[in-house]
Amino acid sequence: MNQCLIFPSDIQIDGNAHLTGRRHQHLLDILRTQTGDKISVGLLNHQMGSGLIVSQDAERTCLQLELEQSPPAATDLTVVLALPRPNMLKRSLQNMAALGIKEIYLIHSRRVEKSFWSSPLLKKEAIENELVLGLEQAKDTVLPNVYLRQQFKPFVEDELADLAKGRRALVAHPSDNSQSVSCCQAPSLVAIGPEGGFIDYEVDLMQQAGLKSYSLGPRILRVETAVPVLISKIWQL
Amino acid sequence: MNQCLIFPSDIQIDGNAHLTGRRHQHLLDILRTQTGDKISVGLLNHQMGSGLIVSQDAERTCLQLELEQSPPAATDLTVVLALPRPNMLKRSLQNMAALGIKEIYLIHSRRVEKSFWSSPLLKKEAIENELVLGLEQAKDTVLPNVYLRQQFKPFVEDELADLAKGRRALVAHPSDNSQSVSCCQAPSLVAIGPEGGFIDYEVDLMQQAGLKSYSLGPRILRVETAVPVLISKIWQL
Repeated sequence: MNQCLIFPSDIQIDGNAHLTGRRHQHLLDILRTQTGDKISVGLLNHQMGSGLIVSQDAERTCLQLELEQSPPAATDLTVVLALPRPNMLKRSLQNMAALGIKEIYLIHSRRVEKSFWSSPLLKKEAIENELVLGLEQAKDTVLPNVYLRQQFKPFVEDELADLAKGRRALVAHPSDNSQSVSCCQAPSLVAIGPEGGFIDYEVDLMQQAGLKSYSLGPRILRVETAVPVLISKIWQL
Repeated sequence: MNQCLIFPSDIQIDGNAHLTGRRHQHLLDILRTQTGDKISVGLLNHQMGSGLIVSQDAERTCLQLELEQSPPAATDLTVVLALPRPNMLKRSLQNMAALGIKEIYLIHSRRVEKSFWSSPLLKKEAIENELVLGLEQAKDTVLPNVYLRQQFKPFVEDELADLAKGRRALVAHPSDNSQSVSCCQAPSLVAIGPEGGFIDYEVDLMQQAGLKSYSLGPRILRVETAVPVLISKIWQL
């Protein structure tokens, strides 16, 4: 935790943030803070700065906030990701949040195991927990939006073309004719397939929605590796 | 396992590869292969191709190999990595192998916990196991070389300047004046710090050895994310 993320609900009537639970325990056990210490903080979806520990006991940490710094620029790259298996999803959510991605669509596709959709990790609160870990790692405050789309065809036909409009829109698909993509800060969108890739029919549909096929070459990467690699290739961090 | 990696010691007098252990169990339990099936194989440090299952029982799988394809081109980027905590090291080794890195130096640095050096994961065989998983994922056969350097100063003073010679050599160091680096296929080297980064003294020494400071911007990434991000930024996959 390079920065402690404060939620509006943590702010009490005295204007200070009162932390309990995970963040309090982390300060106590890992960072071993004491009253009088200053730590790096950020207010969810707002400014960042420092938190002076005005009191700390076994139950809670009380922080006086001074917020004067803007969070880092967002990465204007929409990620459309075929739902990965739960442990990969965890790390991918953390990585996307850390890399500044703000719009994430988790979609179904033929090679996504149906059982993945019943993972408790897809509950709103569980997704948020992973995103918060990524924001705390990278020192950001702006929570990404995560949308679940359990039906491939309606998503591609009804939403994807609009999402792709005005953006450089790509579907990552292993092939021999690797198209090179320059790394820049133009608004972009990338669709990333499941283990085994999108099937041809799915790639065709996405191409009809305006996406261009893009290959990283012959190496097959795990989803949790492909996500940061593709973001780095497309967006100038 | 997108490709089953065969070791020279697996080849028996009949010219076929006899697999036991992890790879045999994976074929049996996960891929559910049967006699007559063909699977994707690669011979360690040699060609890739297909393996015809000529027999398979509870004990072993016997493969007749046909090897006619070259492994993908290597990534000519030497990675000098401050030794990360064991679980991060595992994933980083897998990722580097999958991304085609062939020269890996694991080094000490001030902010590396000394206890990490006594991890059983640093045994030659344990490192090789992780690398093999990465090669199997990416369909490569060429095992990376991993060198352990437990003393920072002698490594930087006696070896690093030579390693950097003739290469674009960078040390990843968070700072505000982010130097941009173009992504290409020029021989390169990148040094990646531990959690908390290299200390200034270490960066100075590495600069004296010919490395240029390079920043990814204000976001602080976990080592296991920074590794694929930096490789992607520097090397044209």
